[in-house]
Amino acid sequence: MEEFHINILNIAAVLLSAYMGGLLIRKIGYPAILGELLIGIILGPSMLGFLEYTESIKVLSEIGIILLMVYIGMEIDFHDLKKASWPGLLAAIGGFFVPFVLGYFTIVAYGGTPISGLFVAIAIGVTSLATKSRILIDLKLLNTRIAYVLMAGALISDTLALVIFSGITNFAETNVVSIKELLIISSKILAFFGVTIAVGSFLLPRLGTYISKSKINNSTTFFTLILIVTFGYCELAELAGMHSILGAFMAGLFLKGNLFPKNVSKELNKAFYDVSIGFMAPVFFVSAGFFVDVSVFRTDLGLLLLITGLAIVGKIVGTALFYLPSRNGWREGLTIGTGMNGRGAVEIIIAEIGLGMGIIDKTIFSILVFMAIFTTLTVPVLLSWTTNWLRKRGELVYMDQRNGVLILGVNPLSLLLAKYFAKKQPVTLIDNNLELVTQAQEQGFSCIHGNALNEDVLAESSPENIALFMGLTANGQVNLRAGELLHKSFLVPGIFVAVSEPESKIGDEVLQKSNAQILFSSSVVMDDWAHKITHHEVSESSAAIKDEIAADKWMRRSGISDNFLPVLIENDEGMMRPFHADDLLSPGEKVIMLQQVK
Amino acid sequence: MEEFHINILNIAAVLLSAYMGGLLIRKIGYPAILGELLIGIILGPSMLGFLEYTESIKVLSEIGIILLMVYIGMEIDFHDLKKASWPGLLAAIGGFFVPFVLGYFTIVAYGGTPISGLFVAIAIGVTSLATKSRILIDLKLLNTRIAYVLMAGALISDTLALVIFSGITNFAETNVVSIKELLIISSKILAFFGVTIAVGSFLLPRLGTYISKSKINNSTTFFTLILIVTFGYCELAELAGMHSILGAFMAGLFLKGNLFPKNVSKELNKAFYDVSIGFMAPVFFVSAGFFVDVSVFRTDLGLLLLITGLAIVGKIVGTALFYLPSRNGWREGLTIGTGMNGRGAVEIIIAEIGLGMGIIDKTIFSILVFMAIFTTLTVPVLLSWTTNWLRKRGELVYMDQRNGVLILGVNPLSLLLAKYFAKKQPVTLIDNNLELVTQAQEQGFSCIHGNALNEDVLAESSPENIALFMGLTANGQVNLRAGELLHKSFLVPGIFVAVSEPESKIGDEVLQKSNAQILFSSSVVMDDWAHKITHHEVSESSAAIKDEIAADKWMRRSGISDNFLPVLIENDEGMMRPFHADDLLSPGEKVIMLQQVK
Repeated sequence: MEEFHINILNIAAVLLSAYMGGLLIRKIGYPAILGELLIGIILGPSMLGFLEYTESIKVLSEIGIILLMVYIGMEIDFHDLKKASWPGLLAAIGGFFVPFVLGYFTIVAYGGTPISGLFVAIAIGVTSLATKSRILIDLKLLNTRIAYVLMAGALISDTLALVIFSGITNFAETNVVSIKELLIISSKILAFFGVTIAVGSFLLPRLGTYISKSKINNSTTFFTLILIVTFGYCELAELAGMHSILGAFMAGLFLKGNLFPKNVSKELNKAFYDVSIGFMAPVFFVSAGFFVDVSVFRTDLGLLLLITGLAIVGKIVGTALFYLPSRNGWREGLTIGTGMNGRGAVEIIIAEIGLGMGIIDKTIFSILVFMAIFTTLTVPVLLSWTTNWLRKRGELVYMDQRNGVLILGVNPLSLLLAKYFAKKQPVTLIDNNLELVTQAQEQGFSCIHGNALNEDVLAESSPENIALFMGLTANGQVNLRAGELLHKSFLVPGIFVAVSEPESKIGDEVLQKSNAQILFSSSVVMDDWAHKITHHEVSESSAAIKDEIAADKWMRRSGISDNFLPVLIENDEGMMRPFHADDLLSPGEKVIMLQQVK
Repeated sequence: MEEFHINILNIAAVLLSAYMGGLLIRKIGYPAILGELLIGIILGPSMLGFLEYTESIKVLSEIGIILLMVYIGMEIDFHDLKKASWPGLLAAIGGFFVPFVLGYFTIVAYGGTPISGLFVAIAIGVTSLATKSRILIDLKLLNTRIAYVLMAGALISDTLALVIFSGITNFAETNVVSIKELLIISSKILAFFGVTIAVGSFLLPRLGTYISKSKINNSTTFFTLILIVTFGYCELAELAGMHSILGAFMAGLFLKGNLFPKNVSKELNKAFYDVSIGFMAPVFFVSAGFFVDVSVFRTDLGLLLLITGLAIVGKIVGTALFYLPSRNGWREGLTIGTGMNGRGAVEIIIAEIGLGMGIIDKTIFSILVFMAIFTTLTVPVLLSWTTNWLRKRGELVYMDQRNGVLILGVNPLSLLLAKYFAKKQPVTLIDNNLELVTQAQEQGFSCIHGNALNEDVLAESSPENIALFMGLTANGQVNLRAGELLHKSFLVPGIFVAVSEPESKIGDEVLQKSNAQILFSSSVVMDDWAHKITHHEVSESSAAIKDEIAADKWMRRSGISDNFLPVLIENDEGMMRPFHADDLLSPGEKVIMLQQVK
C-alpha cells in the first residue's frame, strides 16, 4: 500500500466554509447553495486561495453529485403533477425552451461550437426545484394555484433538461454524426431507460418485499442497498454513453416507495439527506466555486450580462407566453415565470460536467455560475412583487379542494369544537384510546383509532383534503409533532395546536418548522375547561365583531376574563376557524366563546 | 478542471461485495466485518482480482476509518464502566498486556524492528467492542456479571490501546530518541489531550446550547457540525504528531451528549451509523483485504500460527490471571477471556496504518488480518462452551440490581398485574392519558405521565433498574416499539408485550429486534378481560405446578378454557413473572389466573 494521506485540514476547512456560507446566506433568505458557491469563489483558488482542490475533495464532490441527484430524484413526487399537470407542462415547456433557444444562438453567435451551445442552452433552461417550497411557505403561497403550477413546472422542466442532456452527452465526443451512429446512440438511450424502468418497476419492488420479509430488514441494510442500486444505475448510464448523474436520477425516481417499505422510508430519507445535503453536496458546490474565473467581470462582462439577461427575460417571458393557453391569465404566467427563474443544483452540475468534458471553457463556466447566482437572487424579490400584485388585484387563486378538519385527541373540548365545524365541513377525529374513539363514533363522528405520529395512520384521514388540523391532546409535544408531520408530509396549510408549556419555552423554530399556531393561552386552561364541559359548568356564547381588529387587541378591549374561553371565529358564511391571538377579526364575524356558569 | 472519472463500476462492485460478504457471514452468526475482510481477500487483487484499489476507494476508506472511529467513540458509554469497573479493569489490563508482551518479543525475536514489534503488540492486544452485544444477546448473557465485565473490559482495553498507539506513532518516524525529543513528544501528546478534552467539555456544550436555541436547530446542521468537529480533531491529532484516528476517537467521545441535544441524538446516531457502518467502513474492510498476501500460508505458516496462538492463549490466560484479584474465580476469568478474544475494527485499522507507514510489511499485515479472522471465529464457540460450563456449575452470576417492573398502559388488567408485582418489586406505570395516570397514582402506584416512545420519558422510570417490562396498551405497535426502545437503549432484559395482531403477522424479526415475548394469545382477549375486570365479573385463582412442564403443554393438559386467563407465574419465593406460552413451569410454582364468574 503506497503511503497515502488525505489532507484533513482542507476537508475540515471546506466543510466549515460550506457551513458558514450556507448559514449566512440563509439568514437573508436565500438557499444554502448560493452561499456555498460564493464562499468557494472567495476562499478558493480563484480569489484568496485558502481552500484547495485535493484528491479527496474531488472524490467527495463526484460522489456528492451522484447522491444529490438520487435525492433530487427521490424528492420528485408524481402526485404533485396531478393537480396542475396541464398548466405545469405549459409553464415548463415555455420556461425551458425559450431561454434554451436564446442561449444556444447567443453562444453560437459568439463563436462557440454547437455542442457548447447546447450545454449552455440546457443550463439556462433548467429551473431549481430544491428551493421552491421554502419560498412558497415564506410568501404564504402553499395553498395557491401558483404553488401547484410551480412545483409541477419545475419537476417537468428538470426532467426535460435531464432527458435532453442524456442525448447530448452521447454526441459530445463525436463531431460528425452518421445515420448509423444516430441509430446506435438512440437505441442505447432507449435501452438505458427501458432497463432502468423495468428494473425499477419490477425487480426493485420484489427485492424490497423479499428483504422486508427476511431477517435482514433494517434501515441500514436498505441504506447500503440504495447505494448499490444507485452506483449500478450510474454504471448503466455510462454503458449507454450517458453521464452517471442520469443513472443516479433514475435510481432516485424508482428507489422511493419501491425498494424500501414505508416504515423505514422516513429515517432513510433523513440519513440520505444528511449525507448528501449535510456533507457531500456542499463540498461539491464549494469546489464548483474553485473553478470560477472572477476576471470574467472585466474580460467578458458583455457576454455575462447578455446571458444573465436572456436567462431572466427568456424564462419569465417564455413561461408567461406558453402559459396563455391555460387561460389562467398573463399576470399569473409572469408570476410563475418569476418563481421559476432560479437556477440551482442541476444547472451547476451540468456546467461542471461541461467544464470537465472540455465542452465549455472556464469563461463560459464562470458566466454560468454567476448566472445561477444572479437569477436565484431575483426569485424572492420578484416573486414577492408579482404575488403581492396578484393579491392586490384579487387574482391570487386558492385551491379549494381542501376543506376537511382533522382533530387529534378525543375529549370534551374537542368534541364540542367538532360539533361546530361539522356544520359546514367534514370533520375527522383521531385518538389512540379505543374507548374514546368508540365514544366519538357513537356521537356520529368519523374517528380513526391509532397513533397520530405514525404517517400511515395520518394517511387514513385523507390528509390531502385537510385544510385545518387542531392538536388537542393533553400532550403538547404530540400535538406539535403531529402538526409538523401533517404540514411537512401532507402540506396541510392550517396547523393549530394546544401546548402544555408556555409558548416562549417551545421556541419559535419549533413552531416555524410545523408552521403552527398556538391555541388558547396555556393547556392548564384547556384541561380545566374540559373538566368544566364534562360537568356541565359551561355555556356557549358569541360576540359579534363590528370593526376590523386584531384578536389579542379585541380580547383586551372586550375585557375577556378567565371565565371566558374564545374558541372559534365564525364568518358571515358560517365557516369556522380556530380563535388564536394573531388572527385578524373582520366586521360581520362572530367570536364563539365558552363561559363558566358556576 | 482536469478530466476526472471515478470508477463507478468498481465502487458498486466493492459495496455489493461488502454487502454480500457481511450478509453471508451474519447468517452463520459472525460479525459483518469478517465477511467483508474475507470477500476483499477473495475478490480483490490478492486472489481473483475482480475488485480494484482505485483513488475513490482510497478516499472512501480513509474517511470511512475516521467516521468509524467517531462512531466507536460515540458508542462508548462511561456509565457501562460503573457496574464493573474494577473487574473490568483487571480483565482489560491482563487481556491487553499479556498478548502485547508476547507479541512484541515474538516479532523482535523474528528479526522485526522494535517499532514494528510495538505495532503488532498493540494489534494483538486489542479487543473488539462492536460485536459484543449481539453475542451476549444470543447466548442470553445480558444480565450476567460476565456481560458487564466484558463491556467494561473491552472499553478499557480499546482506550488503552489507542492511548499507547498515540505515543508510538510519534516515535515511529525517528529512530534515535533524545531526552529533548522525548519531552517535546510527550508535551505534544499532553497538549493534544488537554485541548481536545477542554474543547469537548467546555466549548462544545456551549456551542450545542447556542445552536439548540437558535433557528438553525435541525439535525442536518448537527450532522454537518459533527463532521467539522471530527475533521478538526483529526487535524489536531496530526499537528500533535499522532494519527488522525485518535482525533476522531476523541471527537466521538465528546460529541455525544455534549454538542447536540437529546431529541436529535437518536436520528443523528442513525444517520451516522448508516454512513459509517452502511457505506464507508465496509469499503475500508473490503479494501483492507486487498493487501493481504495469501501466500503467507505457504511462506510464513509458522509465524502465522505462532502469532494467532499467542493472541488466543495470551488473551485468555492473561485475562484469567489478572482477573484473579477480583475474587470472581478463575473459571469466570477464563470465560471473560474467551469473550474478549475477538479482534475487530480497531485491530484492522492499526494494522492498515502500520502497513501504510511502512512500519510493518505485507507479510506481517496479512498475518494480522488472518489473526483477526481466526480469533473472531473462536468467540461464539468458546464463549458458548465456557458460559455453559459456568451455567452447569451454577456459577453464572446474575446481576441483581435490576428488579423493577415497568408497565405501559393504565387499564384494569395492568392495575391488577401491578398489584401482584408490587408485593415484591418496585412497580412503575406509564401512560399518556393524564386522567388514567391520576387514577393509578390514587391507587398508590408510581405512575409517569408521557409518551413511552420518547426516550426521555422512559428515562424517568430509572430504566437501568427495570428487569421486566410489560406493554399493555391497546396498541400493540406502541407496546412493541416501547419494548424495543427499552431493550436497545436501556438493555432491559425482560420484554413482554400484548399485541393486537396475530403473532404470525408481526413477524419474527420484529420480536427478535426487541427480544420481546408475546403476552396472552391475542389482544381481543385482553380488551374483553379488562372489561370483565371493570364490571367485577372476574375472580382470581391459582394452580400449583407439580412437575416441570412447558407452559403451553400445561395449558393443554389442564384444559384451560376461554373462561380462564393465566396471567402470572409465582415461584416459591413469591417472585412473579408474566405467564407466556414459551415459559417452563417448575415444581413449586403457581400459575395465577383470572376466571370469568358470570
